[in-house]
Amino acid sequence: MDAPASENQTPSKNPGEKEDWYSLAMRYSKYYAGKVEVIPKVPVSGLRDFSYWYTPGVAAVSMAISKNKELAYELTGKWNTIAIVGDGSRVLGLGNIGGEGALPVLEGKALIFKYLGGVNAIPLPLSTQEPQRIQDTVSALEAGFGGVNLEDIESPKCFEVLHYLQDTMNIPVWHDDQQGTAGVALAALINSLKLTGRKLGDSEVVLFGAGAANIATARLLITAGADPKKIMLVDTKGILEAEREDMDQLMLHHKWKYELALKTNGSRRKGSLEEALIGADVLIAASKPGPGTIKKEWVSKMNRDAIVFAEANPTPEIWPWELKEAGVRIIATGRSDFPNQVNNSLVFPAVFRGALDSRSRGISDTMVVAASTELALCAEEKGLADDYILPTMDEWEAYPRVAARVASKAKEEGLARRGQSYSDYLEQAKEIIANSRRTISSCISSGSISPLPS
Amino acid sequence: MDAPASENQTPSKNPGEKEDWYSLAMRYSKYYAGKVEVIPKVPVSGLRDFSYWYTPGVAAVSMAISKNKELAYELTGKWNTIAIVGDGSRVLGLGNIGGEGALPVLEGKALIFKYLGGVNAIPLPLSTQEPQRIQDTVSALEAGFGGVNLEDIESPKCFEVLHYLQDTMNIPVWHDDQQGTAGVALAALINSLKLTGRKLGDSEVVLFGAGAANIATARLLITAGADPKKIMLVDTKGILEAEREDMDQLMLHHKWKYELALKTNGSRRKGSLEEALIGADVLIAASKPGPGTIKKEWVSKMNRDAIVFAEANPTPEIWPWELKEAGVRIIATGRSDFPNQVNNSLVFPAVFRGALDSRSRGISDTMVVAASTELALCAEEKGLADDYILPTMDEWEAYPRVAARVASKAKEEGLARRGQSYSDYLEQAKEIIANSRRTISSCISSGSISPLPS
Repeated sequence: MDAPASENQTPSKNPGEKEDWYSLAMRYSKYYAGKVEVIPKVPVSGLRDFSYWYTPGVAAVSMAISKNKELAYELTGKWNTIAIVGDGSRVLGLGNIGGEGALPVLEGKALIFKYLGGVNAIPLPLSTQEPQRIQDTVSALEAGFGGVNLEDIESPKCFEVLHYLQDTMNIPVWHDDQQGTAGVALAALINSLKLTGRKLGDSEVVLFGAGAANIATARLLITAGADPKKIMLVDTKGILEAEREDMDQLMLHHKWKYELALKTNGSRRKGSLEEALIGADVLIAASKPGPGTIKKEWVSKMNRDAIVFAEANPTPEIWPWELKEAGVRIIATGRSDFPNQVNNSLVFPAVFRGALDSRSRGISDTMVVAASTELALCAEEKGLADDYILPTMDEWEAYPRVAARVASKAKEEGLARRGQSYSDYLEQAKEIIANSRRTISSCISSGSISPLPS
Repeated sequence: MDAPASENQTPSKNPGEKEDWYSLAMRYSKYYAGKVEVIPKVPVSGLRDFSYWYTPGVAAVSMAISKNKELAYELTGKWNTIAIVGDGSRVLGLGNIGGEGALPVLEGKALIFKYLGGVNAIPLPLSTQEPQRIQDTVSALEAGFGGVNLEDIESPKCFEVLHYLQDTMNIPVWHDDQQGTAGVALAALINSLKLTGRKLGDSEVVLFGAGAANIATARLLITAGADPKKIMLVDTKGILEAEREDMDQLMLHHKWKYELALKTNGSRRKGSLEEALIGADVLIAASKPGPGTIKKEWVSKMNRDAIVFAEANPTPEIWPWELKEAGVRIIATGRSDFPNQVNNSLVFPAVFRGALDSRSRGISDTMVVAASTELALCAEEKGLADDYILPTMDEWEAYPRVAARVASKAKEEGLARRGQSYSDYLEQAKEIIANSRRTISSCISSGSISPLPS
């Protein structure tokens, strides 16, 4: 079946749905002009109150912190505030649309951070796209933030920026298009392997697309126990391998891909995706929107009980029903209107909740593996099925559990400034997330948040 | 009367009061751990809502903005969001206490911005104090903000940073320690001159202290019509004049002071503050905390019906009763426990409200003069008196009026992206400020903002 034919078979729901979301988004964005606002979290009922919230009283608080910077976590909002920083160089499927263009996405992300993780997240779109200036800007903002979420920065710049900031900053730095996407893919894979009776270390895994998401996914899978020799990355030039003709280029300009070229593909296979899929157990595609990016006949060469995640947005690389027809057993996409949505939002609010609650100095790969493992367990406890490998976004109980696992791992690794027991982390995360949801409901019912225009 | 004697005569209220504010501030800051939070301003009641607030719908909004950046003012929160940026190099009377130390002050300011001006203000303390890096950082953040409020940056660095950013950014940039302080001093002076039957252009004005506040005040007074030849600046080296021995130094390292040395003090007077005050009509002191910084016998050499603003915090350069005894008629300080508080908070929330409502590209000195003039008028309409030369912070009606004047002036000067009539600006400012106050009350009454601990 070729691409145009597939397009007629759009998902069951409503063929025009995406367009409707577009026009609703435009209409509502115009009506509200901004998705988040800054409000007091302390009572202010008259001007006398400023004598302790501002001068003269505030001087005592400032002095205390200046003598011990760590007190900023106790006496200000630093403990629960992160920056969401993006340069707009790669926004959704839209490409390079600049900082202003990225702002609606960053605002949406801030909404999700608060709603699902109880985190105060500040959208900070940048007016620069130079890696050095991005790094300098983010570094200069460290004093006020408990963490940084990078967003929508193009590859390979995103690797350089992330690693520089992780190395030099004393707060957790995360690039959601890398670690978030990798984290949820790993969680989905853990459960898919359980369902198909496989072990991660024995599985033949093909990663199609070698951008931010899949390079991070390859690294995370290896951290989680995958055998690098059994992993193949495939990009527009074909299967990545240590003797490919562009290796010199990669060594100079993309050391992350270069390192994976040396480490993966132990049998030195060459060729196209079609080649790579022969005998593969797992395909994780994070490439370009389909349909038709991946052909059914290629997928049919995979092993029995194959696992395929087609993560491209807004349209998966190949439609789920084509995968079914090709004999694939477990199918996931990035979309909410198909089963098994591989969705970063299952991961980032909880990971930051945990990193913040432990006042962690960083977010290590093993912390992400801990998040994925707990997320997978949440679904397993409800009963896994081929069309239920991950919790959905409204299974609230997953978030504090994942947060507490992340915090415990930070403590175990010596990254936590604030060590507590798992159950204390869990209680704290539950309370903060519940409070956040309660505040939102109460603002809606009091009318402070106006109802949607009709 | 010398300084120690004066100290026994602390203000009427409560001798230990300042200490109480300190301990309350510490206690409450620990209890709340942060003064502001980020919450949704759009309704979110379930996960379906993210289909328009986030993907896929948000793509349409991002695309629209990427084609026309000005649409960020219509479709995101940029129109009502500012950054409060400080490097902590000069915080209150505390000196250089670093970014983390500045954070409690920036948070307090964010509270005031929202409560009095309806502005979403993001505290951004910096981890750098190098002027070039401050400039680069603030420039890089332009995409997401409708304005920038600089705070607590030491002199003369603050002049360089402010002027660079004003020249290069396309949104209003303000340094509250300069323009805010100057703006409120000008308003107070306008009314003091009315009460004493003087004209600004004829008055002999002495400015004691030549830091951020008074250098900005000198410039603003000149913009407002003062005769530069009748202004004298006095710093630790005495009266500033064109032949003072440090002029070469100033030319190299402090061009703003250098320019004022050439322009002011037309009669080339030399000497100390005591000298300068002989025959002066007005003294505006923004120097170092007293008491005893300024002596009563010096002030007694001023003209009849003298006007003195002793702005140092937390203790004025000279106690108000000493000024009274020296024959001064109109006395103002920076403190809320004496009459005539010269308080930046009367100015900055309203100036930003006006700059934002007109979507101004900048805040010119004439916009500040318009703010001061309107603020003065608000007090005049209620009936001026020697102990009532300015509205107090709880005269709410002043804020939208000042905002609307500022917006109208931005329009007149071609700085406004959004031109409206004065009355439309006024209505808009009233509505936004009232909404903001309503949201806060409603969060307090619903319990989303917890009551003060007992």
